[in-house]
Amino acid sequence: MLVRGQAYRTIFVADDGWSVAVIDQTRLPFAFELLRLQTAEQAAHAICNMVVRGAPLIGVTAAYGVALGLRADATDVGLERVISLLGATRPTAVNLRWALERMAAALAPESPERRVELAYAEAARMADEDVAACAAIGRHGAAILERLATSRGGEVVRVLTHCNAGWLACVDWGTALAPVYAAHDAGIALHVYVDETRPRNQGAALTAFELGAHGVPHTVIADNTGGHLMQHGLVDVCLVGSDRTTAAGDVANKIGTYLKALAARDNGVPFYVALPSSTIDWTIGDGVRDVPIEERAAREVTHVRGRTDDGRVLDVEVVAPGSPVANPAFDVTPARLVTGIITERGVAPASRAGLAALYPERSSR
Amino acid sequence: MLVRGQAYRTIFVADDGWSVAVIDQTRLPFAFELLRLQTAEQAAHAICNMVVRGAPLIGVTAAYGVALGLRADATDVGLERVISLLGATRPTAVNLRWALERMAAALAPESPERRVELAYAEAARMADEDVAACAAIGRHGAAILERLATSRGGEVVRVLTHCNAGWLACVDWGTALAPVYAAHDAGIALHVYVDETRPRNQGAALTAFELGAHGVPHTVIADNTGGHLMQHGLVDVCLVGSDRTTAAGDVANKIGTYLKALAARDNGVPFYVALPSSTIDWTIGDGVRDVPIEERAAREVTHVRGRTDDGRVLDVEVVAPGSPVANPAFDVTPARLVTGIITERGVAPASRAGLAALYPERSSR
Repeated sequence: MLVRGQAYRTIFVADDGWSVAVIDQTRLPFAFELLRLQTAEQAAHAICNMVVRGAPLIGVTAAYGVALGLRADATDVGLERVISLLGATRPTAVNLRWALERMAAALAPESPERRVELAYAEAARMADEDVAACAAIGRHGAAILERLATSRGGEVVRVLTHCNAGWLACVDWGTALAPVYAAHDAGIALHVYVDETRPRNQGAALTAFELGAHGVPHTVIADNTGGHLMQHGLVDVCLVGSDRTTAAGDVANKIGTYLKALAARDNGVPFYVALPSSTIDWTIGDGVRDVPIEERAAREVTHVRGRTDDGRVLDVEVVAPGSPVANPAFDVTPARLVTGIITERGVAPASRAGLAALYPERSSR
Repeated sequence: MLVRGQAYRTIFVADDGWSVAVIDQTRLPFAFELLRLQTAEQAAHAICNMVVRGAPLIGVTAAYGVALGLRADATDVGLERVISLLGATRPTAVNLRWALERMAAALAPESPERRVELAYAEAARMADEDVAACAAIGRHGAAILERLATSRGGEVVRVLTHCNAGWLACVDWGTALAPVYAAHDAGIALHVYVDETRPRNQGAALTAFELGAHGVPHTVIADNTGGHLMQHGLVDVCLVGSDRTTAAGDVANKIGTYLKALAARDNGVPFYVALPSSTIDWTIGDGVRDVPIEERAAREVTHVRGRTDDGRVLDVEVVAPGSPVANPAFDVTPARLVTGIITERGVAPASRAGLAALYPERSSR
């Protein structure tokens, strides 16, 4: 999407034809800087230190990391080494493992001489596939926003979103924000309410940054505020992403999503979840019971990162010293609260039958 | 309540018999310091700069401020001057005006020679009345917590609260936290989940501080987290305060309260609101329609105050530069989501009939 009027992906091969450029997301929202990765170690470092984040982007970065590693050593030993190096960066990231397995499967049978070229090609294919899936989600979701615009007689459609499911988490477009960009680019008047998303503030920092950079009108609000807005008829639709979706349509997403879904239900506001089918876990049904919820570091709650008046970015302590904290990272929104699930194949009711109809080849497993 | 093992009120006449000691709440939670007010100007400054905050405490501080002002000039002119000085500190605080009108009514008919002594006596009476009302709320609410403890076979009763409706906002005990202190002091095992309460973080800073200082076990959570805890059966009761209550039992409280009430309803968790009857506005019924919601400064959302690693307290910017923000300070929880209203006279159903039965002399107006 656009930054300072120029179209970017979050990762791309630089002008030299081999090094890999990424946006340094640790510097956002206060600075937009590209970082050039030239070795597998630098790619691993970028994943470890959250220079890149978001499941799809982590996967593609790892894939390009393999290509960079093979430039130094394309032997079987070199291939194994780079895959194990990159695989150790974020041990719980499913997408990372999937990407590395795909690279290994594509490259291991080939001769060392051909591996570097094939690795770049495979990484580029993965990036393009992610962009295509997000673009398709964008088209299907934009149709919903277009219908809302029509039913509002062309008045601005007011969207509420939580956390960051935007292009910065992917290669381009994003998931929950893809419909927003597609509709905005098609000339539909939108306004996005952006939940701050404590404790890590991905909404205030990343979603607000990317909407602002692309020129989408928006307003940042505290996480407490969405219910009040919906009570007063100021939100036409909620649009969020998903980290894991059950076969029955329950949605595990950033903590706090469930509260917004309850407010949407209480006020008759449609609540849509946009997700690539890769997040659907066909093996589980009851999300509240079966999705394990990651408990993250206390420091994310006790401290807030921000920029001081003199321009330094640092952490400040905000909780009474000595008070314990809890920090579950996700919650589960039951399918009964979800109006529809927007996937790359179209919009499904949030139910076993709805998802199975879109993905017959997967749901029978 | 207790701080470092010693019982405090938030305001009291110092050992010298005339100056007025308050807790400097701008220094909390990182420092606990008393400030001595010796003039009406200092009292006005303390109210203006939120050294003291919370409607009841502001009222009592203004009352003592009148006494301090009369020490310098107890003539009719002096009385008028000090009342107008203190009245200008927080123009929208209903309680402040009420307290000053009460002081004026008590003192104007008296001779200047007697006014100083009478002003101290009236201020002390107001403080004691507030403590008595909060203590009564505590007794009635503690009975609810005691019943929950019994139904849980003596297991720890887990309470969720939002914002700060504790003793720091009053003279002692607090409103929503009064039942917690009363039950805790009576030996009932409690654990309080404390919502951080962005944007001003009164939960993380003040509620966590006062619970910790008094020795009540608690855990601070992001505002996004309560729904997840309730889904997993980790909350036995929600207990919040109210800034304004309608005759029909709708409750205007800190923004985000409504979202927790929705989660409580969705999970069968009782949701109680503790309030002194002075917050009931008998002239309105529909809170969502009729309670005006204060829109506060953008900086409360764009910046967070906290302590740096080297011990300085400062603001850091957390929102993408240039992104607009909205900051409504309160939301309305409809009576249908409220299990009961805990007042100084007892617990009422959240309905017109319920409140009228407890306050027959007011509801007929």
